[in-house]
Amino acid sequence: MRSAIARIGEERYHSRHPFHRLLHGGGASRGQVQAWVLNRFYYQASIPLKDAALMSKSRDREFRREWRRRIDEHDGRGDNEGGIERWLVLAEAVGLDRAAVARHEGILPITRFAVDAYVQFVRERSLLEAVASSLTELFAPKIHEERIAGLLRHYDFANDRTVSYFQRRLEEAPGDVEFGLDYVLRNARSRAEQEACLAAVRFKTDLLWAQLDGLYHAYVEPAHPPPGAFVPGAP
Amino acid sequence: MRSAIARIGEERYHSRHPFHRLLHGGGASRGQVQAWVLNRFYYQASIPLKDAALMSKSRDREFRREWRRRIDEHDGRGDNEGGIERWLVLAEAVGLDRAAVARHEGILPITRFAVDAYVQFVRERSLLEAVASSLTELFAPKIHEERIAGLLRHYDFANDRTVSYFQRRLEEAPGDVEFGLDYVLRNARSRAEQEACLAAVRFKTDLLWAQLDGLYHAYVEPAHPPPGAFVPGAP
Repeated sequence: MRSAIARIGEERYHSRHPFHRLLHGGGASRGQVQAWVLNRFYYQASIPLKDAALMSKSRDREFRREWRRRIDEHDGRGDNEGGIERWLVLAEAVGLDRAAVARHEGILPITRFAVDAYVQFVRERSLLEAVASSLTELFAPKIHEERIAGLLRHYDFANDRTVSYFQRRLEEAPGDVEFGLDYVLRNARSRAEQEACLAAVRFKTDLLWAQLDGLYHAYVEPAHPPPGAFVPGAP
Repeated sequence: MRSAIARIGEERYHSRHPFHRLLHGGGASRGQVQAWVLNRFYYQASIPLKDAALMSKSRDREFRREWRRRIDEHDGRGDNEGGIERWLVLAEAVGLDRAAVARHEGILPITRFAVDAYVQFVRERSLLEAVASSLTELFAPKIHEERIAGLLRHYDFANDRTVSYFQRRLEEAPGDVEFGLDYVLRNARSRAEQEACLAAVRFKTDLLWAQLDGLYHAYVEPAHPPPGAFVPGAP
Protein backbone atom coordinates (compact mmCIF):
# COMPACT_ATOMS: atom_id res chain seq x y z
CA MET A 1 0.00 0.00 0.00
CA ARG A 2 2.68 2.44 1.06
CA SER A 3 4.61 2.09 -2.18
CA ALA A 4 1.44 2.06 -4.30
CA ILE A 5 0.44 5.38 -2.72
CA ALA A 6 3.91 6.79 -3.28
CA ARG A 7 3.74 5.79 -6.93
CA ILE A 8 0.48 7.67 -7.39
CA GLY A 9 2.24 10.73 -6.03
CA GLU A 10 5.14 10.37 -8.43
CA GLU A 11 2.87 9.94 -11.42
CA ARG A 12 -0.05 12.19 -10.69
CA TYR A 13 0.62 14.81 -7.99
CA HIS A 14 0.10 18.37 -9.17
CA SER A 15 3.71 19.27 -8.46
CA ARG A 16 4.24 18.04 -12.04
CA HIS A 17 1.66 20.37 -13.56
CA PRO A 18 2.99 23.00 -16.00
CA PHE A 19 1.18 25.76 -14.12
CA HIS A 20 3.18 24.98 -10.99
CA ARG A 21 6.42 24.89 -12.96
CA LEU A 22 5.55 28.35 -14.26
CA LEU A 23 4.65 29.64 -10.80
CA HIS A 24 7.58 28.16 -8.88
CA GLY A 25 10.08 28.99 -11.60
CA GLY A 26 9.30 32.69 -11.52
CA GLY A 27 7.62 32.77 -14.92
CA ALA A 28 4.13 33.68 -13.70
CA SER A 29 2.86 37.19 -14.27
CA ARG A 30 1.26 39.19 -11.51
CA GLY A 31 -2.17 38.37 -12.94
CA GLN A 32 -1.40 34.66 -13.09
CA VAL A 33 -0.24 34.68 -9.48
CA GLN A 34 -3.41 36.53 -8.50
CA ALA A 35 -5.60 34.05 -10.37
CA TRP A 36 -3.88 31.17 -8.62
CA VAL A 37 -4.25 32.74 -5.16
CA LEU A 38 -7.90 33.61 -5.78
CA ASN A 39 -8.87 30.19 -7.08
CA ARG A 40 -6.80 28.18 -4.67
CA PHE A 41 -8.48 30.05 -1.83
CA TYR A 42 -11.75 28.31 -2.65
CA TYR A 43 -9.96 25.04 -2.03
CA GLN A 44 -8.45 26.28 1.25
CA ALA A 45 -11.75 27.63 2.49
CA SER A 46 -13.49 24.34 1.73
CA ILE A 47 -11.06 22.14 3.65
CA PRO A 48 -12.76 22.61 7.04
CA LEU A 49 -16.11 21.66 5.46
CA LYS A 50 -14.49 18.51 4.14
CA ASP A 51 -12.90 17.73 7.50
CA ALA A 52 -16.13 18.36 9.42
CA ALA A 53 -17.97 16.02 7.03
CA LEU A 54 -15.29 13.43 7.63
CA MET A 55 -15.49 13.81 11.43
CA SER A 56 -19.23 13.39 11.23
CA LYS A 57 -18.68 9.84 9.95
CA SER A 58 -16.68 8.57 12.90
CA ARG A 59 -18.25 7.14 16.04
CA ASP A 60 -14.77 6.99 17.60
CA ARG A 61 -14.24 9.90 19.97
CA GLU A 62 -10.45 9.57 19.88
CA PHE A 63 -10.52 9.71 16.10
CA ARG A 64 -12.63 12.87 16.17
CA ARG A 65 -10.37 14.50 18.75
CA GLU A 66 -7.44 13.86 16.46
CA TRP A 67 -9.18 14.99 13.28
CA ARG A 68 -10.63 18.22 14.67
CA ARG A 69 -7.06 19.52 14.93
CA ARG A 70 -7.18 19.95 11.15
CA ILE A 71 -10.23 22.16 11.43
CA ASP A 72 -8.52 24.24 14.10
CA GLU A 73 -5.44 24.58 11.89
CA HIS A 74 -7.54 26.07 9.10
CA ASP A 75 -10.16 28.01 11.05
CA GLY A 76 -7.72 29.14 13.74
CA ARG A 77 -7.83 28.69 17.49
CA GLY A 78 -6.36 30.81 20.25
CA ASP A 79 -3.07 32.37 19.16
CA ASN A 80 -3.15 30.55 15.83
CA GLU A 81 -4.94 32.74 13.28
CA GLY A 82 -5.40 29.70 11.05
CA GLY A 83 -4.58 28.77 7.47
CA ILE A 84 -7.57 30.56 5.98
CA GLU A 85 -6.49 33.84 7.51
CA ARG A 86 -2.89 33.25 6.42
CA TRP A 87 -4.10 32.69 2.86
CA LEU A 88 -6.01 35.98 2.94
CA VAL A 89 -2.78 37.69 4.00
CA LEU A 90 -1.18 36.22 0.89
CA ALA A 91 -4.12 37.41 -1.22
CA GLU A 92 -3.67 40.98 -0.02
CA ALA A 93 0.06 40.76 -0.62
CA VAL A 94 -0.45 39.88 -4.28
CA GLY A 95 -2.74 42.88 -4.69
CA LEU A 96 -6.16 41.28 -4.46
CA ASP A 97 -9.10 42.71 -2.54
CA ARG A 98 -9.41 40.69 0.63
CA ALA A 99 -13.20 40.88 0.84
CA ALA A 100 -13.66 39.88 -2.81
CA VAL A 101 -11.38 36.90 -2.32
CA ALA A 102 -13.25 35.93 0.84
CA ARG A 103 -16.47 35.96 -1.23
CA HIS A 104 -14.76 33.87 -3.95
CA GLU A 105 -15.66 36.48 -6.57
CA GLY A 106 -14.51 35.52 -10.04
CA ILE A 107 -13.28 32.01 -9.35
CA LEU A 108 -13.32 29.62 -12.27
CA PRO A 109 -16.26 27.24 -12.56
CA ILE A 110 -13.71 24.42 -12.89
CA THR A 111 -12.32 25.36 -9.48
CA ARG A 112 -15.77 25.19 -7.93
CA PHE A 113 -16.63 21.87 -9.58
CA ALA A 114 -13.38 20.22 -8.57
CA VAL A 115 -13.42 21.44 -4.97
CA ASP A 116 -17.12 20.74 -4.46
CA ALA A 117 -16.54 17.25 -5.85
CA TYR A 118 -13.98 16.72 -3.10
CA VAL A 119 -16.36 17.79 -0.31
CA GLN A 120 -19.09 15.65 -1.84
CA PHE A 121 -16.76 12.64 -2.13
CA VAL A 122 -15.99 12.85 1.58
CA ARG A 123 -19.67 13.24 2.44
CA GLU A 124 -20.76 10.25 0.38
CA ARG A 125 -17.97 7.72 0.58
CA SER A 126 -16.85 5.55 3.47
CA LEU A 127 -14.79 6.99 6.29
CA LEU A 128 -11.87 4.88 5.07
CA GLU A 129 -12.01 6.34 1.55
CA ALA A 130 -12.45 9.82 2.99
CA VAL A 131 -9.31 9.44 5.10
CA ALA A 132 -7.44 7.94 2.16
CA SER A 133 -8.28 10.98 0.05
CA SER A 134 -6.30 13.11 2.53
CA LEU A 135 -3.11 11.15 1.91
CA THR A 136 -1.93 13.42 -0.89
CA GLU A 137 -0.50 15.32 2.07
CA LEU A 138 2.29 12.75 1.93
CA PHE A 139 3.46 14.52 -1.20
CA ALA A 140 2.85 18.07 0.05
CA PRO A 141 6.03 18.91 1.99
CA LYS A 142 8.14 18.75 -1.16
CA ILE A 143 5.85 21.07 -3.13
CA HIS A 144 5.60 23.47 -0.19
CA GLU A 145 9.39 23.65 0.06
CA GLU A 146 9.74 24.22 -3.68
CA ARG A 147 7.01 26.83 -3.55
CA ILE A 148 8.42 28.75 -0.60
CA ALA A 149 11.86 28.83 -2.21
CA GLY A 150 10.48 29.69 -5.66
CA LEU A 151 8.16 32.45 -4.45
CA LEU A 152 10.82 34.04 -2.21
CA ARG A 153 13.36 33.98 -5.01
CA HIS A 154 11.21 35.27 -7.85
CA TYR A 155 8.42 37.52 -6.57
CA ASP A 156 8.44 40.87 -4.79
CA PHE A 157 5.33 40.12 -2.78
CA ALA A 158 6.89 37.09 -1.14
CA ASN A 159 8.35 37.34 2.34
CA ASP A 160 8.19 35.34 5.56
CA ARG A 161 4.83 36.80 6.46
CA THR A 162 3.13 36.33 3.11
CA VAL A 163 4.31 32.76 2.59
CA SER A 164 3.53 31.80 6.19
CA TYR A 165 0.65 29.61 5.01
CA PHE A 166 3.08 27.19 3.37
CA GLN A 167 5.65 27.42 6.14
CA ARG A 168 3.02 26.51 8.69
CA ARG A 169 1.70 23.60 6.62
CA LEU A 170 5.24 22.22 6.55
CA GLU A 171 5.02 22.01 10.34
CA GLU A 172 1.45 20.74 10.61
CA ALA A 173 1.06 18.32 7.71
CA PRO A 174 3.51 15.60 8.78
CA GLY A 175 1.62 14.90 12.02
CA ASP A 176 -1.74 14.99 10.24
CA VAL A 177 -0.71 12.64 7.50
CA GLU A 178 1.02 10.18 9.79
CA PHE A 179 -2.27 9.64 11.61
CA GLY A 180 -4.20 9.31 8.35
CA LEU A 181 -1.72 6.90 6.80
CA ASP A 182 -1.67 4.76 9.92
CA TYR A 183 -5.48 4.68 9.89
CA VAL A 184 -5.62 3.59 6.27
CA LEU A 185 -2.92 0.95 6.67
CA ARG A 186 -4.72 -0.52 9.69
CA ASN A 187 -8.24 -0.41 8.25
CA ALA A 188 -7.84 -1.21 4.56
CA ARG A 189 -7.59 -4.96 5.04
CA SER A 190 -9.32 -6.50 2.05
CA ARG A 191 -8.06 -6.11 -1.49
CA ALA A 192 -11.27 -4.24 -2.36
CA GLU A 193 -10.73 -1.76 0.48
CA GLN A 194 -7.13 -1.20 -0.54
CA GLU A 195 -8.16 -0.59 -4.15
CA ALA A 196 -10.84 1.85 -2.97
CA CYS A 197 -8.21 3.74 -0.96
CA LEU A 198 -5.83 3.96 -3.90
CA ALA A 199 -8.72 5.16 -6.07
CA ALA A 200 -9.45 7.83 -3.46
CA VAL A 201 -5.86 9.08 -3.64
CA ARG A 202 -6.02 9.13 -7.44
CA PHE A 203 -9.34 10.98 -7.31
CA LYS A 204 -7.71 13.57 -5.06
CA THR A 205 -4.75 14.01 -7.40
CA ASP A 206 -7.27 14.47 -10.23
CA LEU A 207 -9.10 17.28 -8.49
CA LEU A 208 -5.86 19.06 -7.58
CA TRP A 209 -4.63 18.70 -11.15
CA ALA A 210 -7.93 19.86 -12.68
CA GLN A 211 -7.74 23.12 -10.74
CA LEU A 212 -4.44 23.90 -12.42
CA ASP A 213 -5.75 22.83 -15.83
CA GLY A 214 -8.48 25.42 -15.35
CA LEU A 215 -5.94 28.11 -14.41
CA TYR A 216 -3.61 27.27 -17.27
CA HIS A 217 -6.34 27.34 -19.89
CA ALA A 218 -7.82 30.56 -18.54
CA TYR A 219 -4.69 32.56 -17.77
CA VAL A 220 -1.65 31.28 -19.67
CA GLU A 221 -1.25 32.54 -23.23
CA PRO A 222 -3.33 32.08 -25.28
CA ALA A 223 -5.49 32.97 -22.27
CA HIS A 224 -9.17 32.09 -22.32
CA PRO A 225 -10.83 33.27 -19.11
CA PRO A 226 -14.43 32.00 -19.13
CA PRO A 227 -17.36 34.42 -18.81
CA GLY A 228 -17.58 35.95 -15.34
CA ALA A 229 -14.13 34.87 -14.24
CA PHE A 230 -11.42 37.10 -12.77
CA VAL A 231 -9.58 39.13 -15.42
CA PRO A 232 -6.12 40.37 -14.39
CA GLY A 233 -5.88 44.13 -14.35
CA ALA A 234 -9.61 44.67 -14.89
CA PRO A 235 -11.12 47.46 -12.81
CA MET B 1 -41.17 32.85 15.87
CA ARG B 2 -39.98 33.01 19.45
CA SER B 3 -43.42 32.33 20.86
CA ALA B 4 -44.21 29.69 18.22
CA ILE B 5 -41.05 27.83 19.24
CA ALA B 6 -41.93 28.15 22.92
CA ARG B 7 -45.39 26.73 22.22
CA ILE B 8 -43.86 23.66 20.55
CA GLY B 9 -41.86 23.14 23.72
CA GLU B 10 -44.93 23.37 25.93
CA GLU B 11 -46.91 20.97 23.81
CA ARG B 12 -44.33 18.46 22.63
CA TYR B 13 -41.09 18.48 24.64
CA HIS B 14 -40.25 15.12 26.20
CA SER B 15 -40.36 16.56 29.70
CA ARG B 16 -44.08 15.66 29.47
CA HIS B 17 -43.45 12.02 28.62
CA PRO B 18 -44.66 9.45 31.20
CA PHE B 19 -41.24 7.77 31.23
CA HIS B 20 -39.63 10.97 32.45
CA ARG B 21 -42.33 11.43 35.10
CA LEU B 22 -41.53 7.92 36.31
CA LEU B 23 -37.78 8.56 36.26
CA HIS B 24 -37.77 11.98 37.86
CA GLY B 25 -40.44 11.05 40.41
CA GLY B 26 -38.40 8.20 41.82
CA GLY B 27 -40.66 5.46 40.48
CA ALA B 28 -38.14 3.92 38.09
CA SER B 29 -36.58 0.58 38.96
CA ARG B 30 -32.86 0.01 38.74
CA GLY B 31 -33.37 -1.82 35.44
CA GLN B 32 -35.44 1.03 34.02
CA VAL B 33 -32.80 3.57 34.98
CA GLN B 34 -30.16 1.36 33.39
CA ALA B 35 -32.19 1.01 30.18
CA TRP B 36 -32.60 4.77 30.01
CA VAL B 37 -28.89 5.45 30.58
CA LEU B 38 -27.86 2.83 28.02
CA ASN B 39 -30.23 4.01 25.31
CA ARG B 40 -29.81 7.70 25.91
CA PHE B 41 -26.06 7.23 25.55
CA TYR B 42 -26.54 6.46 21.87
CA TYR B 43 -28.09 9.88 21.53
CA GLN B 44 -25.28 11.56 23.47
CA ALA B 45 -22.60 9.79 21.48
CA SER B 46 -24.22 10.83 18.21
CA ILE B 47 -24.40 14.54 19.00
CA PRO B 48 -20.84 15.32 17.84
CA LEU B 49 -21.56 13.54 14.54
CA LYS B 50 -24.62 15.73 14.13
CA ASP B 51 -22.68 18.87 15.02
CA ALA B 52 -19.81 18.02 12.68
CA ALA B 53 -22.32 17.44 9.85
CA LEU B 54 -23.84 20.81 10.64
CA MET B 55 -20.45 22.57 10.67
CA SER B 56 -19.65 21.02 7.33
CA LYS B 57 -22.54 23.00 5.81
CA SER B 58 -21.29 26.45 6.75
CA ARG B 59 -18.86 28.45 4.64
CA ASP B 60 -18.72 31.06 7.45
CA ARG B 61 -15.57 30.59 9.49
CA GLU B 62 -16.96 32.54 12.46
CA PHE B 63 -20.02 30.30 12.49
CA ARG B 64 -17.85 27.19 12.49
CA ARG B 65 -15.63 28.54 15.26
CA GLU B 66 -18.75 29.06 17.37
CA TRP B 67 -20.33 25.71 16.56
CA ARG B 68 -17.22 23.58 17.16
CA ARG B 69 -17.52 24.48 20.86
CA ARG B 70 -20.41 22.03 20.99
CA ILE B 71 -18.21 19.25 19.68
CA ASP B 72 -15.56 20.10 22.26
CA GLU B 73 -18.19 20.06 25.02
CA HIS B 74 -19.15 16.50 24.11
CA ASP B 75 -15.83 15.04 23.01
CA GLY B 76 -13.82 16.88 25.65
CA ARG B 77 -10.89 19.24 25.32
CA GLY B 78 -8.07 20.00 27.70
CA ASP B 79 -9.27 19.86 31.32
CA ASN B 80 -12.86 19.21 30.24
CA GLU B 81 -13.41 15.46 29.99
CA GLY B 82 -16.52 16.08 27.90
CA GLY B 83 -20.17 15.11 28.08
CA ILE B 84 -19.65 11.64 26.58
CA GLU B 85 -17.18 10.75 29.31
CA ARG B 86 -19.49 12.21 31.97
CA TRP B 87 -22.31 10.05 30.65
CA LEU B 88 -20.12 6.95 30.90
CA VAL B 89 -19.45 7.86 34.54
CA LEU B 90 -23.22 7.87 35.05
CA ALA B 91 -23.49 4.51 33.27
CA GLU B 92 -20.98 2.92 35.63
CA ALA B 93 -22.73 4.48 38.62
CA VAL B 94 -26.02 2.79 37.71
CA GLY B 95 -24.24 -0.56 37.47
CA LEU B 96 -23.73 -0.91 33.73
CA ASP B 97 -20.58 -2.18 32.07
CA ARG B 98 -18.78 0.84 30.68
CA ALA B 99 -17.34 -0.92 27.65
CA ALA B 100 -20.69 -2.49 26.70
CA VAL B 101 -22.39 0.89 26.95
CA ALA B 102 -19.63 2.46 24.84
CA ARG B 103 -20.34 -0.21 22.19
CA HIS B 104 -24.10 0.51 22.45
CA GLU B 105 -24.77 -3.16 23.14
CA GLY B 106 -28.45 -3.92 23.58
CA ILE B 107 -29.90 -0.54 22.65
CA LEU B 108 -33.42 -0.55 21.29
CA PRO B 109 -33.85 -0.44 17.51
CA ILE B 110 -36.21 2.49 18.08
CA THR B 111 -33.38 4.41 19.74
CA ARG B 112 -31.11 3.80 16.78
CA PHE B 113 -33.77 4.76 14.22
CA ALA B 114 -34.71 7.96 16.01
CA VAL B 115 -31.15 9.12 16.65
CA ASP B 116 -29.91 8.17 13.18
CA ALA B 117 -32.86 10.07 11.74
CA TYR B 118 -31.59 13.16 13.56
CA VAL B 119 -28.06 12.88 12.17
CA GLN B 120 -29.48 12.23 8.71
CA PHE B 121 -31.83 15.21 8.98
CA VAL B 122 -28.91 17.50 9.73
CA ARG B 123 -26.88 16.01 6.88
CA GLU B 124 -29.63 16.43 4.31
CA ARG B 125 -31.52 19.57 5.23
CA SER B 126 -30.47 23.19 4.95
CA LEU B 127 -28.10 24.73 7.46
CA LEU B 128 -31.00 26.84 8.71
CA GLU B 129 -33.19 23.81 9.43
CA ALA B 130 -30.25 22.01 11.00
CA VAL B 131 -29.63 24.91 13.38
CA ALA B 132 -33.36 25.17 14.11
CA SER B 133 -33.43 21.51 15.12
CA SER B 134 -31.00 22.34 17.92
CA LEU B 135 -33.42 24.81 19.50
CA THR B 136 -35.04 22.23 21.75
CA GLU B 137 -32.16 23.23 24.00
CA LEU B 138 -34.32 26.21 24.86
CA PHE B 139 -36.47 23.79 26.84
CA ALA B 140 -33.60 21.75 28.31
CA PRO B 141 -32.60 23.73 31.42
CA LYS B 142 -35.94 23.05 33.08
CA ILE B 143 -35.78 19.30 32.48
CA HIS B 144 -32.14 19.16 33.61
CA GLU B 145 -33.04 20.93 36.85
CA GLU B 146 -35.99 18.60 37.46
CA ARG B 147 -33.80 15.63 36.64
CA ILE B 148 -30.90 16.60 38.88
CA ALA B 149 -33.28 17.24 41.79
CA GLY B 150 -35.29 14.07 41.11
CA LEU B 151 -32.29 11.78 40.72
CA LEU B 152 -30.53 13.16 43.82
CA ARG B 153 -33.67 12.81 45.91
CA HIS B 154 -34.73 9.34 44.85
CA TYR B 155 -31.76 7.23 43.76
CA ASP B 156 -28.76 5.91 45.66
CA PHE B 157 -26.46 6.12 42.64
CA ALA B 158 -27.01 9.85 42.25
CA ASN B 159 -24.44 12.30 43.60
CA ASP B 160 -22.66 15.40 42.34
CA ARG B 161 -20.18 13.36 40.37
CA THR B 162 -22.65 11.01 38.69
CA VAL B 163 -25.12 13.73 37.68
CA SER B 164 -22.35 16.05 36.50
CA TYR B 165 -23.44 15.57 32.88
CA PHE B 166 -26.68 17.45 33.56
CA GLN B 167 -25.07 20.03 35.81
CA ARG B 168 -22.56 20.85 33.12
CA ARG B 169 -25.23 21.11 30.41
CA LEU B 170 -27.02 23.64 32.58
CA GLU B 171 -23.91 25.81 32.30
CA GLU B 172 -23.17 25.18 28.61
CA ALA B 173 -26.57 25.04 26.94
CA PRO B 174 -27.69 28.66 27.45
CA GLY B 175 -24.74 30.07 25.49
CA ASP B 176 -25.15 27.46 22.75
CA VAL B 177 -28.84 28.01 22.30
CA GLU B 178 -28.59 31.79 22.36
CA PHE B 179 -26.33 31.65 19.32
CA GLY B 180 -28.61 29.16 17.55
CA LEU B 181 -31.77 31.12 18.28
CA ASP B 182 -30.19 34.35 17.10
CA TYR B 183 -29.06 32.62 13.91
CA VAL B 184 -32.55 31.29 13.20
CA LEU B 185 -34.28 34.58 13.96
CA ARG B 186 -31.90 36.46 11.65
CA ASN B 187 -31.96 33.96 8.79
CA ALA B 188 -35.51 32.62 8.69
CA ARG B 189 -36.93 35.58 6.79
CA SER B 190 -39.60 34.19 4.51
CA ARG B 191 -42.75 32.53 5.79
CA ALA B 192 -41.59 29.26 4.15
CA GLU B 193 -38.25 29.39 5.98
CA GLN B 194 -39.95 30.09 9.28
CA GLU B 195 -42.34 27.18 8.77
CA ALA B 196 -39.41 24.92 7.91
CA CYS B 197 -37.66 25.96 11.13
CA LEU B 198 -40.72 25.25 13.24
CA ALA B 199 -41.09 21.88 11.51
CA ALA B 200 -37.45 21.16 12.39
CA VAL B 201 -38.13 21.87 16.07
CA ARG B 202 -41.21 19.62 15.95
CA PHE B 203 -39.21 16.90 14.24
CA LYS B 204 -36.64 17.12 17.03
CA THR B 205 -39.31 16.86 19.74
CA ASP B 206 -40.66 13.80 17.91
CA LEU B 207 -37.34 12.02 17.94
CA LEU B 208 -36.75 12.79 21.61
CA TRP B 209 -40.27 11.61 22.45
CA ALA B 210 -39.99 8.43 20.35
CA GLN B 211 -36.92 7.35 22.31
CA LEU B 212 -38.97 7.40 25.51
CA ASP B 213 -41.88 5.61 23.83
CA GLY B 214 -39.44 2.86 23.00
CA LEU B 215 -38.19 2.69 26.59
CA TYR B 216 -41.67 2.74 28.07
CA HIS B 217 -42.96 -0.03 25.85
CA ALA B 218 -39.89 -2.17 26.40
CA TYR B 219 -39.30 -1.67 30.11
CA VAL B 220 -42.40 -0.44 31.94
CA GLU B 221 -44.93 -3.14 32.96
CA PRO B 222 -46.19 -4.91 30.99
CA ALA B 223 -42.61 -4.85 29.69
CA HIS B 224 -41.90 -5.94 26.12
CA PRO B 225 -38.18 -5.74 25.40
CA PRO B 226 -37.67 -6.53 21.70
CA PRO B 227 -35.36 -9.37 20.60
CA GLY B 228 -31.72 -8.60 21.27
CA ALA B 229 -32.37 -5.66 23.55
CA PHE B 230 -30.95 -5.12 27.03
CA VAL B 231 -32.78 -7.15 29.70
CA PRO B 232 -32.43 -5.84 33.26
CA GLY B 233 -30.73 -8.28 35.55
CA ALA B 234 -29.77 -10.67 32.75
CA PRO B 235 -26.27 -12.12 33.06
